[in-house]
Amino acid sequence: MNFDTIRYEIHGPAAVITLHRPERMNAFTHEMKDEVIAALDIADADDAVRAIIFTGHGDAFCAGADLSTGMETFNLVSQAKAEGELDDSDPRWRDSGGVMNLRIWNCIKPVIGAVHGPAVGIGATMLLPMDFRLASTAAKFAFPFAKRGIAWDGCASWFLPRIVGMPTAMDWGLTGRTFKADEALEKGLVSAMHAPDALMGAALAIADEFAKSTAPVSVAVMRQMAWRMLGAASPMEAHRIESKAILHAGMSPDAGEGVMAFLEKRPAKFPMKPSSDLPPWYPFWDEEGY
Amino acid sequence: MNFDTIRYEIHGPAAVITLHRPERMNAFTHEMKDEVIAALDIADADDAVRAIIFTGHGDAFCAGADLSTGMETFNLVSQAKAEGELDDSDPRWRDSGGVMNLRIWNCIKPVIGAVHGPAVGIGATMLLPMDFRLASTAAKFAFPFAKRGIAWDGCASWFLPRIVGMPTAMDWGLTGRTFKADEALEKGLVSAMHAPDALMGAALAIADEFAKSTAPVSVAVMRQMAWRMLGAASPMEAHRIESKAILHAGMSPDAGEGVMAFLEKRPAKFPMKPSSDLPPWYPFWDEEGY
Amino acid sequence: MNFDTIRYEIHGPAAVITLHRPERMNAFTHEMKDEVIAALDIADADDAVRAIIFTGHGDAFCAGADLSTGMETFNLVSQAKAEGELDDSDPRWRDSGGVMNLRIWNCIKPVIGAVHGPAVGIGATMLLPMDFRLASTAAKFAFPFAKRGIAWDGCASWFLPRIVGMPTAMDWGLTGRTFKADEALEKGLVSAMHAPDALMGAALAIADEFAKSTAPVSVAVMRQMAWRMLGAASPMEAHRIESKAILHAGMSPDAGEGVMAFLEKRPAKFPMKPSSDLPPWYPFWDEEGY
Repeated sequence: MNFDTIRYEIHGPAAVITLHRPERMNAFTHEMKDEVIAALDIADADDAVRAIIFTGHGDAFCAGADLSTGMETFNLVSQAKAEGELDDSDPRWRDSGGVMNLRIWNCIKPVIGAVHGPAVGIGATMLLPMDFRLASTAAKFAFPFAKRGIAWDGCASWFLPRIVGMPTAMDWGLTGRTFKADEALEKGLVSAMHAPDALMGAALAIADEFAKSTAPVSVAVMRQMAWRMLGAASPMEAHRIESKAILHAGMSPDAGEGVMAFLEKRPAKFPMKPSSDLPPWYPFWDEEGY
Repeated sequence: MNFDTIRYEIHGPAAVITLHRPERMNAFTHEMKDEVIAALDIADADDAVRAIIFTGHGDAFCAGADLSTGMETFNLVSQAKAEGELDDSDPRWRDSGGVMNLRIWNCIKPVIGAVHGPAVGIGATMLLPMDFRLASTAAKFAFPFAKRGIAWDGCASWFLPRIVGMPTAMDWGLTGRTFKADEALEKGLVSAMHAPDALMGAALAIADEFAKSTAPVSVAVMRQMAWRMLGAASPMEAHRIESKAILHAGMSPDAGEGVMAFLEKRPAKFPMKPSSDLPPWYPFWDEEGY
Repeated sequence: MNFDTIRYEIHGPAAVITLHRPERMNAFTHEMKDEVIAALDIADADDAVRAIIFTGHGDAFCAGADLSTGMETFNLVSQAKAEGELDDSDPRWRDSGGVMNLRIWNCIKPVIGAVHGPAVGIGATMLLPMDFRLASTAAKFAFPFAKRGIAWDGCASWFLPRIVGMPTAMDWGLTGRTFKADEALEKGLVSAMHAPDALMGAALAIADEFAKSTAPVSVAVMRQMAWRMLGAASPMEAHRIESKAILHAGMSPDAGEGVMAFLEKRPAKFPMKPSSDLPPWYPFWDEEGY
């Protein structure tokens, strides 16, 4: 693949996306956002890919927004050289971190963050819509928005309290302080901490587990069901979509194979593919037109 | 009571519902769903019942859906011998695990799960709308839907992330792996782990605490207030219903007795009964017509 | 300030509100509710105040509702000497704990609870809309509503499950039992436990951290963004408001100063003030008319 700010590689059943701006600690740019989205489109369309792993080149995961433009860094209007009146429904004024993170959230493959160094600002918030977050002992994290005179980005105001709870989200967000991997583990931002040279192996092992044991269409729809129901007012909403799911899945070749493999005590070989066999009820939400 | 797939017994202030299909590790069937619902109707209507305990006969809690029909297990259409077009608003296509779990969720008595062996699939998701989950050291759990080619059932896509958090819900749900009581305790699926012969005693002790110290009408309305507010957009919704609650409770005999018993340093004897004295504002939600 | 039931004092960048009814263990009254609200109005309007700390006079934090009126304690109708029909849209029937707690929730400064003794009923629920909760080893807590024949107050049915999770909220709420600081710490109700004589120092240190490192307008808007998004159905709602935030903040003097201070490795001196410089998109919610 021909990317400037990232690398895209296949390792077994995993697509590995490496943030790659060596001179800038992999700092985030609009181009990186566009390239990450393009890479996710490729990974989602490739049935051989069972999980997507994010990592960073060199010692950093992602240093956050590239501040090399100084005071203009967060000035979207200046960057867009806007003329005329400021109208905040203009799509140019969308938070680009949020655009990228919503795309990560919409993946049909599980997404794994493997954080081996500093993950700051958008470099930290991009982890939140992922499904698995692993850290090496060298990782550190910060949501330093309050220290830069800005505010939450990357939909972190929605994701972070849901991942680590409100008290921790308020602590990290309102103080903006830097914290290390052990605190991230204790508070649940990451689910495991590994030695630096074991981190990528642990991430790849999760991808292998998906490939070995699970139906890719089941994983795709279960991922979105859980994320979408996180905002649902009542379990009745879940019941509606789960009833559609069991109606359609129950007649499917994957369910037949899953049950028979279990009864015959053998590994299942699921015939259905996300590229062609997502169920007729999927997607089950109205995408909001923003 | 005359049940085929469960047993219903009274132990002090507790109704104990025992899943009871010895030959099938208490595997779930449509009949079991119907009988559990009937038993809950009895328990909710009986003012002597202060808590409902679920357990399983023999070594298992519940092995999940009964797979003895093989490839047809999850094929609702085949089971219903449907004719004509597939219309997913047809109530025959409702996930039966969800129907049962929504009834558990709607209980006016606190519900306690006492898990002493394998709890798999619907056997695990039925625990989620309960208020207390206790495990013995012999318990194990799995949400193996992705391994069977199906998806979340029993409203687990709504409940599980709210009980154990999103990272753990994604781990257990997307991999489908089996885990033991100690992991369930660490991640918050169960609140305590006991030796096998101490498990039922611990569950009964919770029921005793309700009987000894609390007003049954207060417990009934507080249980539903907390569950329903879990989907509310803002604390203002809670303020509205809590204001109704204090207006009506404040004039009630239970509140008078509660305050006087406290001031007189004696046990309270609450006169109000759930069967006749639920407040006029209860239920406070519009049941959705599914 | 001229208050009867509280004290209001400035300690460096912190406003300290001390619940102060020595003869009644700082038990809550309608007057205390009104005075707390007035004190918060003062603190929010004072740009020198970077955080608000709540504590209690003497050995208790707050013993809950003042029960000295006995059976009439929770009888709002009797208190209001109501005439005519009971109409629960009448603002006299609002839960006064909820009115106070919603005002705490709406603060534009971070709020810290420093609990050094018993915090019971409304004395416990008033902690929930705060951002930081610290306990001394002498603290204890109870949500004893079910023991008094009433129900959740202070919007606790919304807040408590979101702070400590549903299993713990149901345990504490439905049993009404008293628990100590170490359990509050383990379950996440408080984020730290200190020796009694170190508690206020720890609370003041948080206020100092805000003063030293963060932009007050960023903190004000980030606090509300996170709280309000806790009820949002999807991260798309967060994306909308975060996009407005970055559009306006990005052009602001605070963002320029924040970036330049970082690049120049010096402390930032943020020029913007909450009293005059909250962004045009703030508040970003429709206040519900209750």
